[in-house]
Amino acid sequence: MSITCWSEEAYDTLKWLAWKLIREQGHERGNGITHPQIKDGTRYQQTNMTTIANVRQIRLERRSPSYWRVTFDLPPVNIFGPKEIPQLNEIITSIETDADVKVVVFDSAVEGFFLTHYDFLAKPEDQPNLPPGRTGLQPLPDMLARLSRAPVVSIVSIRGRATGVGSELALASDMRFASREKAILSQWEVGAGLVPGGGPMARLPRLIGRGRALEVLLGADDIPGDLAELYGYVNRALPDAELDAFVEALATRIASFDKQAIAETKRLVDIASLPTDAEIVPEWDAFIASVGRPASQTRLKALLERGFHRAGDVENRLGYYVGQLQLK
Amino acid sequence: MSITCWSEEAYDTLKWLAWKLIREQGHERGNGITHPQIKDGTRYQQTNMTTIANVRQIRLERRSPSYWRVTFDLPPVNIFGPKEIPQLNEIITSIETDADVKVVVFDSAVEGFFLTHYDFLAKPEDQPNLPPGRTGLQPLPDMLARLSRAPVVSIVSIRGRATGVGSELALASDMRFASREKAILSQWEVGAGLVPGGGPMARLPRLIGRGRALEVLLGADDIPGDLAELYGYVNRALPDAELDAFVEALATRIASFDKQAIAETKRLVDIASLPTDAEIVPEWDAFIASVGRPASQTRLKALLERGFHRAGDVENRLGYYVGQLQLK
Amino acid sequence: MSITCWSEEAYDTLKWLAWKLIREQGHERGNGITHPQIKDGTRYQQTNMTTIANVRQIRLERRSPSYWRVTFDLPPVNIFGPKEIPQLNEIITSIETDADVKVVVFDSAVEGFFLTHYDFLAKPEDQPNLPPGRTGLQPLPDMLARLSRAPVVSIVSIRGRATGVGSELALASDMRFASREKAILSQWEVGAGLVPGGGPMARLPRLIGRGRALEVLLGADDIPGDLAELYGYVNRALPDAELDAFVEALATRIASFDKQAIAETKRLVDIASLPTDAEIVPEWDAFIASVGRPASQTRLKALLERGFHRAGDVENRLGYYVGQLQLK
Repeated sequence: MSITCWSEEAYDTLKWLAWKLIREQGHERGNGITHPQIKDGTRYQQTNMTTIANVRQIRLERRSPSYWRVTFDLPPVNIFGPKEIPQLNEIITSIETDADVKVVVFDSAVEGFFLTHYDFLAKPEDQPNLPPGRTGLQPLPDMLARLSRAPVVSIVSIRGRATGVGSELALASDMRFASREKAILSQWEVGAGLVPGGGPMARLPRLIGRGRALEVLLGADDIPGDLAELYGYVNRALPDAELDAFVEALATRIASFDKQAIAETKRLVDIASLPTDAEIVPEWDAFIASVGRPASQTRLKALLERGFHRAGDVENRLGYYVGQLQLK
Repeated sequence: MSITCWSEEAYDTLKWLAWKLIREQGHERGNGITHPQIKDGTRYQQTNMTTIANVRQIRLERRSPSYWRVTFDLPPVNIFGPKEIPQLNEIITSIETDADVKVVVFDSAVEGFFLTHYDFLAKPEDQPNLPPGRTGLQPLPDMLARLSRAPVVSIVSIRGRATGVGSELALASDMRFASREKAILSQWEVGAGLVPGGGPMARLPRLIGRGRALEVLLGADDIPGDLAELYGYVNRALPDAELDAFVEALATRIASFDKQAIAETKRLVDIASLPTDAEIVPEWDAFIASVGRPASQTRLKALLERGFHRAGDVENRLGYYVGQLQLK
Repeated sequence: MSITCWSEEAYDTLKWLAWKLIREQGHERGNGITHPQIKDGTRYQQTNMTTIANVRQIRLERRSPSYWRVTFDLPPVNIFGPKEIPQLNEIITSIETDADVKVVVFDSAVEGFFLTHYDFLAKPEDQPNLPPGRTGLQPLPDMLARLSRAPVVSIVSIRGRATGVGSELALASDMRFASREKAILSQWEVGAGLVPGGGPMARLPRLIGRGRALEVLLGADDIPGDLAELYGYVNRALPDAELDAFVEALATRIASFDKQAIAETKRLVDIASLPTDAEIVPEWDAFIASVGRPASQTRLKALLERGFHRAGDVENRLGYYVGQLQLK
């Protein structure tokens, strides 16, 4: 079953809009590079990808057998789409099965973006033909649920926007540390008529309480680092200049501990704190259904017209822009 | 079944005390107005109500089809009693069934009081003859449970005291914002020998953790805005001068979003965060039983002698006064 | 069943190491007192105990019929071992069964230590021959689970280190207040290859959320008072000079309330917030199994060589030292 099973009609609307925008603007960010392949309506972000076509967009670096880094490098704004699923799936599988790894840190190589929202311009043919995940969940929630249960400590180091999928990956990880000045977390989806799909309704209330979870999810606004710390959305917000050293010290510290003690302790915490897979199932279904409704199609089109899915102010301040749509 | 099924004997004790106090004092707050109807033992607060007899004490204002305000206006101290239940019930029913409303804000028109404790001087004949609530719960916890599950975002804007029923309404709402200088939250009941009845034992530990919930409930003291924010008892405490604009902006923002996306997202959060009705049932029963015991009757009498149920220092600093009773 | 059922082999290794350390050093802290009984390999800490042999190490003071204090006095570093179990068990039983007590405060008489880790040098013959606990749990988790459910308010006043058992006792208590300058909380066990055994995997995520609980448990580092407050690990951190007066005022306040109202309110909070005993069972089993594994034996030996179980820097900064072992 395809991960983006929204209707062909919905997809066609978005594809047409993206094609029109790109035709009219010719090229982006004034860098003088024309994108001839755009003319046939190929999705916009994909063409930007051509400059890094031979580079892994999600890089796994084994700093030592016990300490790994995963770096998101999908410029210009670290949008996560179906094309990225096989890469991330391979990495999650390695984390689950490697005998030596004890700790994995997720970070970003893209200025301003940790990892942002789902790719709404993905083409049906981009969908990976993946077998159903081990959990029985759809590929994205499946990978996140597996990361939560892996016998390895997962740490996200958030600099820039962790919006939508980025927030969901952060919530599925074991610990979250954020740049006080440069981190933004959000679940912006309700602002665009969507229901979030990667587990935040199950995970956020358990982490930060019902009231603050409802504010994040239904207010759909950008949450800066210090508010995220106050709410417990992240473990701590640290001064940007200290974030890397802090995470590095914590990761190397944990990497020196005994893997079995880590795994057994985490497994016992899981009992007290993880939602069941069954609780997460309806979130993805609700997300897919919401993508096909006029309320979200209209809002996504309006956002695309203003610059969504491209480098610029809409992606930089998505919380603000979803509040300005003034649609019924 | 009546909401206040405490014994006639208990009620008579309190009625006699109120009557005696009022006879001896003649009139209150030196405003020169005599209250002749007090002489027959009519409850004190009720007589103050006569000046606003033709005004709704709980006002519903539809600022737009999608954004409503509910304002508590029960001077002098916003005590909530059985007489107010039908008004609030009607409003909750409208919130549940209206096709357009997306967000409702609860606030107060009474200086110093958001909404305070239950009316312990209510007469048996004040009890509404309501059919059992949809949840099967008693009327007050029934309304609060229905508010939590309504497909509408409920926001409380707390300025002044949210004590007892006020705190319970806040906890049943989706989000809580407080004036840093002027908000006081409390569950003062244990200090008067009572068990709280409107759901705080089920809701507070889920929101702020067992330790802080037990401190609020068993310490029974006043919690100012900034401590309430630290504990997560409110989402945020804001400078008093900024509270109204903040809540207005959030409410109008949410009112611009899609109702179905709001409702489905909230419903999924409910699964992870709401207590069952069955868990709330014993709270109301324990409250009613506690009202009839000598430990609470003695304490309520002592508080009434000092000024409870009237404008003044006991209502303003109830947390302090329950700690000064020095009873066994 | 003995509380420390680790293998004789594991115990012999540690005993030999302690004996060797003590032989080589002759006496400790330069106080000129020789310890002849050490020569036969008697555990080190026990010999220090001889100076206070006739004094209760866990003292119960009834400040009034309704307000009790329990003070840990096991110098030099308030290590808790099997020999202390009968004393604590007797106190917990009194708390559970006394008709008048309403509040009990736990504190320490030892500078720098509230209550620290389990005694890893305890001899098999030190084990109390206790009947199985009422909960069916092993003695230590049994006592902690019973304290959580007692119809009495338990408050810990943390000055100095609450590490391992001390943290677990704090987590099983109803409320935690800490010296901002002098309190340190930690679950250091994973840093020594151990799985914590006294319930923190069940209790910490419910109290502070999964992410911060995993950081405390898997980072295994010292958590100072203000961070403990931010995380909700304690209710509040107070300036050291204010801690005692604050706790005293809260305890005497609660002691003036009605015991039945306290007990019923707490029982209802328990429903929403306590783990089941069944959830705690595997923690102790995992702890005992981990003590017998080479990963912990090697680490505990390395810590003992550096000064573990004795007054000094290793006990004062255990979080730092477990991060410096550099073992595989």
